[in-house]
Amino acid sequence: MRVKIAVLPGDGIGPEVVKQAIKVINVLSKKFHHQVEIKEGIVGGAAIDKFGDPLPEETWKICEESDSILLGAVGGPKWDNLPGDKRPEKALLKLRSGFNLFANLRPISIFDELIFSSPIKEEYLKGVDFIIVRELTGGLYFGKPKETRIENGEEIAIDTMIYRTSEIRRIAHVAFKMAQKRKKKVTSVDKANILECSRLWRKIVEEVAKEYPDVALEHMYVDNCAMQIVRNPKQFDVILTENTFGDILSDEAAVITGSIGMLPSASLGETKKGLYEPIHGSAPDIAGQNVANPIATILSVALMFRYSFDLEEEAKLIEKSVRKVLSLGYFTKDLYANNPYAQKMVTTEEMGDLICSVI
Amino acid sequence: MRVKIAVLPGDGIGPEVVKQAIKVINVLSKKFHHQVEIKEGIVGGAAIDKFGDPLPEETWKICEESDSILLGAVGGPKWDNLPGDKRPEKALLKLRSGFNLFANLRPISIFDELIFSSPIKEEYLKGVDFIIVRELTGGLYFGKPKETRIENGEEIAIDTMIYRTSEIRRIAHVAFKMAQKRKKKVTSVDKANILECSRLWRKIVEEVAKEYPDVALEHMYVDNCAMQIVRNPKQFDVILTENTFGDILSDEAAVITGSIGMLPSASLGETKKGLYEPIHGSAPDIAGQNVANPIATILSVALMFRYSFDLEEEAKLIEKSVRKVLSLGYFTKDLYANNPYAQKMVTTEEMGDLICSVI
Ligand SMILES: CC(C)[C@H](C(=O)O)[C@@H](O)C(=O)O
Ligand SMILES: CC(C)[C@H](C(=O)O)[C@@H](O)C(=O)O
Repeated sequence: MRVKIAVLPGDGIGPEVVKQAIKVINVLSKKFHHQVEIKEGIVGGAAIDKFGDPLPEETWKICEESDSILLGAVGGPKWDNLPGDKRPEKALLKLRSGFNLFANLRPISIFDELIFSSPIKEEYLKGVDFIIVRELTGGLYFGKPKETRIENGEEIAIDTMIYRTSEIRRIAHVAFKMAQKRKKKVTSVDKANILECSRLWRKIVEEVAKEYPDVALEHMYVDNCAMQIVRNPKQFDVILTENTFGDILSDEAAVITGSIGMLPSASLGETKKGLYEPIHGSAPDIAGQNVANPIATILSVALMFRYSFDLEEEAKLIEKSVRKVLSLGYFTKDLYANNPYAQKMVTTEEMGDLICSVI
Repeated sequence: MRVKIAVLPGDGIGPEVVKQAIKVINVLSKKFHHQVEIKEGIVGGAAIDKFGDPLPEETWKICEESDSILLGAVGGPKWDNLPGDKRPEKALLKLRSGFNLFANLRPISIFDELIFSSPIKEEYLKGVDFIIVRELTGGLYFGKPKETRIENGEEIAIDTMIYRTSEIRRIAHVAFKMAQKRKKKVTSVDKANILECSRLWRKIVEEVAKEYPDVALEHMYVDNCAMQIVRNPKQFDVILTENTFGDILSDEAAVITGSIGMLPSASLGETKKGLYEPIHGSAPDIAGQNVANPIATILSVALMFRYSFDLEEEAKLIEKSVRKVLSLGYFTKDLYANNPYAQKMVTTEEMGDLICSVI
């Protein structure tokens, strides 16, 4: 297979972890005889510093001409006081909406070797395996009006949560299709007792559900879901929710695994082009020290091979290799201390090399 | 002191738990020679069944003529399919906005005897003691337009998040005043990298902070806060946030204590009149069985004496009496099984009586 991948290292630890992911891509494509062309683009704070724009034209073009996009991380305190439109995060929003990547997938799975580092008790965690399907291009993030103005002599700010039937329908299909390949259960999360958007959401999700008679559907209020993720995470298979709720709940779900440095994400649209990135941030405090954990980015590559290239075998091999390296007792700094399975602490580079050598 | 209290038992376990709270009010007022007049009003599903209205005129009047309001719980599957405006929850919204109760306070504290029942590991929990100050009458819940309409041949739904400077300012003052009496730290939670409302929120909170130089202010994104509540809840003193975020985060915070049946809440405005209620729901599955835990409602009475009547000694006595009863090993069914401190399982009635007798 011949594919073009755009790689956007971004800020903080982004470049370091992305470098390891590129190694993995190279080893993997050699093994399976794929022709992979990688083009790097500048994004986020780095792009602001150089071009005054978090997503320069040039970077956009690289992404446009690629089959898929791998991103490290964007942002940092240096750019925190810029106006909304000039921030590093704006690049993310533009990539999402520009390529119509409306479906954000966040698998939440547990690594037995990392349960020790979770704030949650082991018996609540063992066997947890679900995925959050977050709508990514609608709702409060993008709705208009979105403005601050003067009214009756004081500033008032407005954001608009807006959902169209077609937006709800397409993300619901993603969730139900996902559930068909898994444990056949969708939990749709909303606030239908208060929000108009949630009532429409519930109605459309129920319509879509009829096309998937083999999948069970349940509805849950977002406040209750925030409880259930901590209290009984095993109950979930696929969580389907809108943009803002998904933002909050997916980070909450990530933290219970005890291994934020391990979790990948995929943002997909109607085509095969996707945006893949670790869920962790740019961690400026540890940037450049060769201590960051590259696994979330490497697992994002696995998702890319699975969803953008339909190369399931390759995806599985990455995932198995990561598990193998952990089972041998190698851990980066974030997961080393107090880890009962730890044999040796490794650097970012070493972790990348280890995974490559297992592959 | 002479006070009038409106009592709205509501649905499910509401009437049972409220009955115990009334006992506590009576014993307490006898002991301290207060004249308390209690008037009951019908609310929620019960009111829908009887009057077709979750908050009948009559009930409103009782609340209006009272100094403070105690509510049990509203809602249940029976009324779940009614349109938004006819639901039991509508009564809550009307009480909040009608009496301008813009500040929802939710203390999150740990009972050593109940740590066993938390999904979180003990070392993360010991010493946790914070309070969530949630804005309660603005934002997405109340903003207009709030409607569903046809556009380009499909239904679209709209909710509006809107915040005025004055709304942000008054709730910020509540949080800073609260922090002054506590550990002198406010964590203001927003999504300022995306939302206009959050950017205004941050700006006004910073202005208000200048009037409280003894209180430290930090800002946190809501997605990060959803992580931090699980990962390091000890870091918080006062969490200040807007309506929707507060709804989600306060339920998440409640669940880590392992004792949702124990947590009270207060909703306050500019006057001394407040609405006090347990944070748990109406639990229809166990209603009428004399097994529900009345402690959250009884502790809500403590908050009422503290905030509406400025009777701190009485408030403390209730709180101390509850802790005393637990320390003696008495627990209702929800907290009995596997409880290493448990001596005897008691009914709803017995728990009420025990607390009264200690008082
Ligand atoms: C950086 C921010 C805009 C982004 C979001 O909220 O979508 C991030 O939190 C995420 O979840 O990918
Ligand atoms: C019932 C519902 C309207 C309410 C809310 O979201 O405010 C409840 O969840 C709460 O937190 O008091």
